[in-house]
Amino acid sequence: MCRKAPFLLRFGNMMSCPTVQDIRAAAERIRPYIHRTPVMTSESINRDVEAEVFFKCENFQKVGAFKIRGASNAIFSLSPEECQKGVATHSSGNHAAALAYAACVRGIPALIVMPHNAPSVKRAAVERYGGKITFCEPTAKARQETLENIVRQTGATVVHPYNDYRVIEGQGTAALELLDQAPDLDVVLAPVSGGGLLSGTAIAVKGISPNTLVMGTEPEGADDAFRSLKEGRIVVCENPKTIADGLRMFLGDLTFPIIRKHVSGIITVSEEAIVRGMKLVWERMKIVIEPSSAVPVAALLEKKADLRGRRIGVILTGGNVDLDNLPWIK
Amino acid sequence: MCRKAPFLLRFGNMMSCPTVQDIRAAAERIRPYIHRTPVMTSESINRDVEAEVFFKCENFQKVGAFKIRGASNAIFSLSPEECQKGVATHSSGNHAAALAYAACVRGIPALIVMPHNAPSVKRAAVERYGGKITFCEPTAKARQETLENIVRQTGATVVHPYNDYRVIEGQGTAALELLDQAPDLDVVLAPVSGGGLLSGTAIAVKGISPNTLVMGTEPEGADDAFRSLKEGRIVVCENPKTIADGLRMFLGDLTFPIIRKHVSGIITVSEEAIVRGMKLVWERMKIVIEPSSAVPVAALLEKKADLRGRRIGVILTGGNVDLDNLPWIK
Repeated sequence: MCRKAPFLLRFGNMMSCPTVQDIRAAAERIRPYIHRTPVMTSESINRDVEAEVFFKCENFQKVGAFKIRGASNAIFSLSPEECQKGVATHSSGNHAAALAYAACVRGIPALIVMPHNAPSVKRAAVERYGGKITFCEPTAKARQETLENIVRQTGATVVHPYNDYRVIEGQGTAALELLDQAPDLDVVLAPVSGGGLLSGTAIAVKGISPNTLVMGTEPEGADDAFRSLKEGRIVVCENPKTIADGLRMFLGDLTFPIIRKHVSGIITVSEEAIVRGMKLVWERMKIVIEPSSAVPVAALLEKKADLRGRRIGVILTGGNVDLDNLPWIK
Repeated sequence: MCRKAPFLLRFGNMMSCPTVQDIRAAAERIRPYIHRTPVMTSESINRDVEAEVFFKCENFQKVGAFKIRGASNAIFSLSPEECQKGVATHSSGNHAAALAYAACVRGIPALIVMPHNAPSVKRAAVERYGGKITFCEPTAKARQETLENIVRQTGATVVHPYNDYRVIEGQGTAALELLDQAPDLDVVLAPVSGGGLLSGTAIAVKGISPNTLVMGTEPEGADDAFRSLKEGRIVVCENPKTIADGLRMFLGDLTFPIIRKHVSGIITVSEEAIVRGMKLVWERMKIVIEPSSAVPVAALLEKKADLRGRRIGVILTGGNVDLDNLPWIK
């Protein structure tokens, strides 16, 4: 099921590992282009999970997900020369739409590689913001080769979805706001996929409030980060099986060391609990969150870590859901 | 289809018609027991409807609907003697849950008459707050007789869902907040059923900002308020047909005159537009609203009134939806 990580192309500049000061600088840089999202609470969910939970609502973020933070920070860090050549990435998810949006705001080209079988809603999101899509076969190899071709032809700067310090810094700004809006947290929970959000969150939290724990949350069927921490090397799950479609990537060589250093553990959760957590948030809080957002909620529901009585920050990562296909409706 | 209104029992005290000062007093009275809900905006919906829309999010209100405002104002207006005997109502909707909740907060009995075929979620909501349900046959006559019996036996104060000045004052507090959060509105849109919300909204808006128009919105299949204004008398729709289950009542003899005096018109909308408006708000704003809340959104989508370029306040009345039965999923 799991194998050693393949060589991972590292894109972006070769800066040293970001600090909380870098995340503060990123927050200043992207402030005009993103929402400061609200933090919400629910008395009834608090009762259910026997803790005090502060939900950072990145489902209300522009483009419907936190991904705009990293994408904006990368794009607004480019030099004028880099801008002329545009940005490129491969993604069929929120990162593609976020990069297209941020590029549109800066007025530069966004070249997106996407498998030809990507859902039409994802394609539409990229096209809405003027992103130029190049379709490829749905394999990692085809994706990579197509992207390399584009870079060779255009000189575009690749903005990787997570294995890029500028992206990590941008994603960390959500936790920066959360700690300001809900101080004195005992724990911050975030989902982990490639680790951009989790590593940025960890740097921000540890830089501001060293005693606050940071924990990752992950579907049992895509538990590569859990295994990676356990084995001390980047582990890749082949064919990860989870409804949380945003959490199917594996850690990068930039995100893994940060997570290893700062994150206290990874909680894995069942698919049943993800669906239950998602529906619970919709029902009680009246907000739309996507399955990936429900993963930390599932961790609270399953009570695999003893968080009773704690003040817990939860990053709700996004709200982009296909409303015609809800996991609790057969 | 429509007939003249039957004699409507008028409950509650016989005060004179509320003014904006009464609504301000209600706001002070209920402040500790309700949420000051946020006002949200959506650039993409603004583009679609070619106007600037400010959504007052009563879906985030306690008990998931604005109804807690009127119920709280009625209950916290009771004398100690009245409190001892409790409150009673017939309702199978949000008013029942709201009255039970507010009674629970004040520590007094809430006696709710409900048809025995009421959905189990509605029953559960009342029971969660300690409301005592008496089931009856699902006819208006049985409901009324059952309620009268309870009142005879207990001396409980009846809190009508809308035909009660204390309830009207309470419902008007949502518009009071809206005008504070989003000043200088050209129009305020609210759905209309029995008219408690619309009449309270109209008093608040006209008292604070006389040039702001107030308009009701209503499903075509339950257009009794539209007809009532046209015919100058309370018209009742028999068997109203609409997905907006909160909008099937008819105006009362307290709400009708207020609406007649202050409301500029009633916009009727198709069922298709209600479903489209509901899904649009979920998709773009990432919030859960019930079909009744989507009726003013439908009015904007159908563009039956020329509101282009206007600053429009919309009261999203609630978010209590059966997530297993969504109208766009067959």
